[in-house]
Amino acid sequence: MKSLKIGIAGLGNVGEEVAYQIINGFKVQKNLFDIEIIAVSAKSKNKKRKVDISNIDFYDDPLEMASNPNLDLVIELIGGDEGVAKDLCFASLENKKGLITANKALIAKYGKDLATLAEKNNLFFSFEASVAGGIPILKLIREGLIVNEIHKLTGILNGTANYILSEMEIEEKSFDEVLLDAQEKGYAEADPSFDIDGIDAAHKTIILSGLAYGKMPTINNLSIKGIRNITLNDITYCDELGYKIKLLGNSEIVSNANGDEELFCSVEPWLIPKDYGLSSVSNVTNAVQVKSSLAGTVMVTGPGAGGEPTASAVLADIFDFYNKGKIYSFGRPAEEIKSNFKTIDYKEKFKFYLKLNVIDKSGVLADLTTIFKNNNLSIESFIQKSNQKDKTADLIIITHEAENRVLNKALITISELDGVISEPVCLSIYT
Amino acid sequence: MKSLKIGIAGLGNVGEEVAYQIINGFKVQKNLFDIEIIAVSAKSKNKKRKVDISNIDFYDDPLEMASNPNLDLVIELIGGDEGVAKDLCFASLENKKGLITANKALIAKYGKDLATLAEKNNLFFSFEASVAGGIPILKLIREGLIVNEIHKLTGILNGTANYILSEMEIEEKSFDEVLLDAQEKGYAEADPSFDIDGIDAAHKTIILSGLAYGKMPTINNLSIKGIRNITLNDITYCDELGYKIKLLGNSEIVSNANGDEELFCSVEPWLIPKDYGLSSVSNVTNAVQVKSSLAGTVMVTGPGAGGEPTASAVLADIFDFYNKGKIYSFGRPAEEIKSNFKTIDYKEKFKFYLKLNVIDKSGVLADLTTIFKNNNLSIESFIQKSNQKDKTADLIIITHEAENRVLNKALITISELDGVISEPVCLSIYT
Repeated sequence: MKSLKIGIAGLGNVGEEVAYQIINGFKVQKNLFDIEIIAVSAKSKNKKRKVDISNIDFYDDPLEMASNPNLDLVIELIGGDEGVAKDLCFASLENKKGLITANKALIAKYGKDLATLAEKNNLFFSFEASVAGGIPILKLIREGLIVNEIHKLTGILNGTANYILSEMEIEEKSFDEVLLDAQEKGYAEADPSFDIDGIDAAHKTIILSGLAYGKMPTINNLSIKGIRNITLNDITYCDELGYKIKLLGNSEIVSNANGDEELFCSVEPWLIPKDYGLSSVSNVTNAVQVKSSLAGTVMVTGPGAGGEPTASAVLADIFDFYNKGKIYSFGRPAEEIKSNFKTIDYKEKFKFYLKLNVIDKSGVLADLTTIFKNNNLSIESFIQKSNQKDKTADLIIITHEAENRVLNKALITISELDGVISEPVCLSIYT
Repeated sequence: MKSLKIGIAGLGNVGEEVAYQIINGFKVQKNLFDIEIIAVSAKSKNKKRKVDISNIDFYDDPLEMASNPNLDLVIELIGGDEGVAKDLCFASLENKKGLITANKALIAKYGKDLATLAEKNNLFFSFEASVAGGIPILKLIREGLIVNEIHKLTGILNGTANYILSEMEIEEKSFDEVLLDAQEKGYAEADPSFDIDGIDAAHKTIILSGLAYGKMPTINNLSIKGIRNITLNDITYCDELGYKIKLLGNSEIVSNANGDEELFCSVEPWLIPKDYGLSSVSNVTNAVQVKSSLAGTVMVTGPGAGGEPTASAVLADIFDFYNKGKIYSFGRPAEEIKSNFKTIDYKEKFKFYLKLNVIDKSGVLADLTTIFKNNNLSIESFIQKSNQKDKTADLIIITHEAENRVLNKALITISELDGVISEPVCLSIYT
């Protein structure tokens, strides 16, 4: 029986679970494989853990671990797109070790470089756990849909953001209240910016685009909007109109005027019709929907984070290494991956949800409809909710299909309108 | 570059598409692989096809093809659980060819025997296309969730049945009308029994159980109910109560009184709450939901049939053979698969939907509630819909949680009740 000797760097939630499963945990097929952890590296050697690591070589410095000559495979679970995690990943491949990581920020930034190095040295390199936790979405794209050309990817990729939006709806609480709750429960970080401002979802969208299209734009080239300005009102109004609000990572291949392929790529909140499968993906659950040439529209949902689901993905990568030895990490030779390029603006037409908080006086609506008329925008449905207390009103508009740039132009004029109190909220409606 | 020489038996929808994709179709990664079709077998050599097979060796007899010494791999797309398809599959493995098939009836019946032969001869054998068309669900269970113990599988596995139930709801048409429509559109066979009576879904449920648990009961040991007796009324009433009706294949591991693992396995229509993801899986779309030890609940949806999606799955198997050479077809050694055993009756408690058509006269309801009381059954909600025309009424009851055997006992008494016109409809509610 082939033997596989592993080193794990980082024994947080995920690392501890991976070690536990290999040492004590999973029964399935265990007798068919010889997989052994021979080295670990973590901040503290003697922290109380659910798995006994006293018989495993301990390294204070993960880089030193990476040069252990007996190691076949390094598992990087430290995190961060620079610093020691980055150094460890490159050092492991340079030292001819296979590499598995769950580090989405690192892969989004250096995925192509790591894949290039892995190929050059004929090594296994994979990162199933970096996107959508326990959902084996990378394998699904890379192998399950291998002969398909993929046109479009849509994902609910951040459990924290999805949890906050779900809780606001269910508990009828404000964004701030739910965020505080989530932080207390450990669902949101003390600094929640990565999750609620869309950065984390953007990393994952970039990785998925690498797998699906071989195109990995830098994060600065993406249009990224978070969920901070979504109010309970927005959620309630959308519910009345038959929609749910979800933070989506989207990427899509479109042809430009010259017939060349370009990439649209964004992270932003969308309105999803309630009868779409994506709308019922609640709480910390993640989802990825893939539109492909032969298999059609395939969607996967499951837990997007947590020690056990993420460990399940890391372990699947370990077995892949055991069974196959080598893969194209992004489903194609690394040299074919296009990185560091500009994405384009969305050219498709969408319906839009528009919410304006205005002074409740005559004339405002007339001004607004004039702007709509002047921009050739038309209204599909309209609700006015007056607030007697402060003499304001919310105007909620669903537009007919329109181009983003037309709507944005109108929005500038609208926000300058006399009587419009706060910045209008404008969200696209997913079709 | 390694070379792979393929023979395809059966050039229907799927076979033609597989040949087309290999010869003319997919661009993705094509340059990285050397895959060639060197033999085909079909009913007619000269039928007009979208792919030119004139330069490929043609065999009238697929068994003769299986002995071509240059073949590495046979793809069986003939169908049927006996006869030439069965002979071809066994002959291919005996002749030391790899084997890929989309034949669910055959795998449900002889999957263990074929896997045993493949292992003995050190050969690749896979059947991704046999379950859920383009959805790579077998790979997901076998590899993506490899370290997970699976507790429960639930699938919408028959596109025709799901299409009929969806169309009845959307078009407000009777079962018979929609079936006729579906037959005219080619969504249902002239003899639709396999699809609407649950046989096809049962084959797929058995295959999934083999993958997930290593347990493959014979089809005669399954509880199988189809959708013939679902009326438009049932769909409308369920809609009012917040449910959709779906034909589900279910299998679940439960412990018996001795603490031994037993398998519950059934195909039947269930009521699904509208806020569950499974309820929004409409038309010919399939879905499989997997409850697993680490990754949690993972669900995949996608097109369950059709030439292109099914070809996508066959081609994914071909690439797996190319890249790996050998797999455990059911995710474990074939000798560990338990087959030919009895499944148990469901012991969990469910809520039930009950519809009785009764003569609209006093006393019927009193008799009914007495039976409920005598069996310790209690009612969660109740609707009476009177039909003035024929002086009958539909009584629609949602029960509180109860055991199957208790409800079935009560149902016998109820159906014999004076005033109850037709056989009561009783469906479990999915939780």
